[in-house]
Amino acid sequence: MRAGTLRSMTAVAASVQPRTRSLTISRAEKAQRVQRVRDELDARGLDGLVLFHPQRISYLTNFVFVSTERPMALVVPARGNLGILIPRLEQEHVARAPEIEDITIYPEYPGERHPMHYLHELLHRAGLLGRKLAADTDGYGDVMGYLGPSLGEINHDGTLSVARDIVDRMRQVKSPAELDLVRESCTWGNLAHRLLQKHMAIGKTEIEISLQASTEAILIMLDTLGASYASPGRGVRNPPVSASFIAGANTALPHGMRREQGLELGDAIITGAGANVGGYQSELERTMIVGEPKREFVEYFDAMLAIQEAGFRAVRPGRTCADVDADVRAEIQRAGLSHLTRHHTGHGMGLEGHESPFLDLGDQTEIQPGMVFSIEPGLYVPGVAGFRHSDTAIVTEDGIELATYYPRDLAALIV
Amino acid sequence: MRAGTLRSMTAVAASVQPRTRSLTISRAEKAQRVQRVRDELDARGLDGLVLFHPQRISYLTNFVFVSTERPMALVVPARGNLGILIPRLEQEHVARAPEIEDITIYPEYPGERHPMHYLHELLHRAGLLGRKLAADTDGYGDVMGYLGPSLGEINHDGTLSVARDIVDRMRQVKSPAELDLVRESCTWGNLAHRLLQKHMAIGKTEIEISLQASTEAILIMLDTLGASYASPGRGVRNPPVSASFIAGANTALPHGMRREQGLELGDAIITGAGANVGGYQSELERTMIVGEPKREFVEYFDAMLAIQEAGFRAVRPGRTCADVDADVRAEIQRAGLSHLTRHHTGHGMGLEGHESPFLDLGDQTEIQPGMVFSIEPGLYVPGVAGFRHSDTAIVTEDGIELATYYPRDLAALIV
Repeated sequence: MRAGTLRSMTAVAASVQPRTRSLTISRAEKAQRVQRVRDELDARGLDGLVLFHPQRISYLTNFVFVSTERPMALVVPARGNLGILIPRLEQEHVARAPEIEDITIYPEYPGERHPMHYLHELLHRAGLLGRKLAADTDGYGDVMGYLGPSLGEINHDGTLSVARDIVDRMRQVKSPAELDLVRESCTWGNLAHRLLQKHMAIGKTEIEISLQASTEAILIMLDTLGASYASPGRGVRNPPVSASFIAGANTALPHGMRREQGLELGDAIITGAGANVGGYQSELERTMIVGEPKREFVEYFDAMLAIQEAGFRAVRPGRTCADVDADVRAEIQRAGLSHLTRHHTGHGMGLEGHESPFLDLGDQTEIQPGMVFSIEPGLYVPGVAGFRHSDTAIVTEDGIELATYYPRDLAALIV
Repeated sequence: MRAGTLRSMTAVAASVQPRTRSLTISRAEKAQRVQRVRDELDARGLDGLVLFHPQRISYLTNFVFVSTERPMALVVPARGNLGILIPRLEQEHVARAPEIEDITIYPEYPGERHPMHYLHELLHRAGLLGRKLAADTDGYGDVMGYLGPSLGEINHDGTLSVARDIVDRMRQVKSPAELDLVRESCTWGNLAHRLLQKHMAIGKTEIEISLQASTEAILIMLDTLGASYASPGRGVRNPPVSASFIAGANTALPHGMRREQGLELGDAIITGAGANVGGYQSELERTMIVGEPKREFVEYFDAMLAIQEAGFRAVRPGRTCADVDADVRAEIQRAGLSHLTRHHTGHGMGLEGHESPFLDLGDQTEIQPGMVFSIEPGLYVPGVAGFRHSDTAIVTEDGIELATYYPRDLAALIV
């Protein structure tokens, strides 16, 4: 075949592109976040921000790591290169985050020289020492036996303010890409919950059913998403998706523990399911019952449903988080059930399962489109059961989109 | 039958007692720990200790809880009753810890009054306000969006020192009861690891094998121990026992992430297994290979084994943690392999998987009988594989007891 023929064949060939889908936040969006942090530093007259918390570091960069007693710190100067302090153990992982240009590696913690001396050098090199700095905490946290000087001690000739909110306020309002990951998380949480319900049977223990459903859901999820699932983890302790439940009298405790006995006729159940997609979380919880419910159970269940729906109606832009909790509490009071509550209406979520703001009487944060909340007012009846559904709601222009879509009515929740 | 007859029959009946075994630390031992804290406060001229970290609270009390953005604090006065700050959500759980006499319950976080105001009241009632206090951190940690004043701000008329070591030094040296729980943890980690190895097969993914082995091990462990297993949890994220591994090139990273592809002939493997028994952890890690190893693999494997054995020989009372790491590093240097190391020799463990002291050049802690260490010097050969075994060692009067007993030789570790 002559070269000319080949060339013309190539020219007329239809474009064949592999479908590319990556369930992660793009590098461009992370770069925009860093720019917003820099703008905020300028607005506050600060020279740089030091972040120790793993979720804040991964919010701004593509650096993925396991958090231990070995401190890490991301340094965001108002002007200049991103810098990071890492242990030698992580030196290969930082290669995935080329946006971090100034990498300071210390040999080990505690080490012959403390890691904070290396942070001192990093700050010095960046021209930040003795300047006006902010940080998410005044030094690395109380993690796995870590001990060390505060950041204030290191920057003793400058000033240090704790300003966790610079990043956390940004995190409160999700972008379209973040909301897509939350929705995708809800999708897989829904599958895990469906499998959980499917495997529930009298005589089987809570953990047996939960492990079976979670294992199946994980394998199906990974087979389905393939390479687009870009949230690799380690071990089995932070699974891509999971579902579990507690049963019987323990449900009357909001954070009740597992029972080591089989399900019995008449057991109340409170479930929980969620998935990690690109680092983003969701929350799906349901109140269920084994066998035909007694009248008392039905009454509390219906009351809980009505209260949760009051929560759904209460969330919209322009109101405050406190307004929502006040509405829900008023509804509970009208029903004469205030003595059965143990917690507020819900919490924000995103990179963490619980994050600010909180749907709580004490949180005056104004609700904005793109915020994501659990809506989960609960009733806890000592000696009877707990009653709580939790749904993940995305704030829209004029209300909410329920990102979780598992059935909420009692008829669908009887084992 | 006359009463007299019955009485004499009862008198001659053999004693029949149910076997009681509880895999937990006794209330008496926890009370002794509290007394030791009080003695230490006296010795340091301090009036009280405030603890925020969940593991330190559970070291001293029987209070079991889920840690979230809602702060909790245990108050140990030098004299007087134990006090605790908890959210209403946890009020039923605290009933399991009757040794805590002064219970302060706040409605919710953030709440209309911040939880730290309630801690202020608790300290006031205990006569501790304005006195000399110590704490594990200066206020509740950076957990799930929590924000609040420091303890120093609350105790502004007194003094506050951060003294994490009061409890953590005690935790370093384990009692016979604690060591039994560590050994029991190793037993179940061993089972999980055996099942992991059994399920390894070409084409199966890391997570598939890990989930299968962990699920089987959890169910066997709970069936075997029955009611004596007194470490109930929630959900599937903190399983009683688990085993997992990473394979292929990722093993060359000390904290490498999971691959989403099946095992292949020639893959190197690094595993990890452990169990939670009465809150206590252990660590078992093995380097393995799929199929016949190449000569290069065997050479690095043998070198790693020799280095780990140098670590075993180096640990005994009277030496320092730094001495051990220095011995191991000297052995690595003699082998000409220093450029392949990424971390120190090992770490303490107990209620946490990593805790102080550390087998590290920078840790001058004197080794004492009852300390528990991982011994796990590793070699990381870029583009080839990582080589690391980790064993759990209990320090004896003149050396160590290896609490993990899984085979360490290559012949036993070929898939």
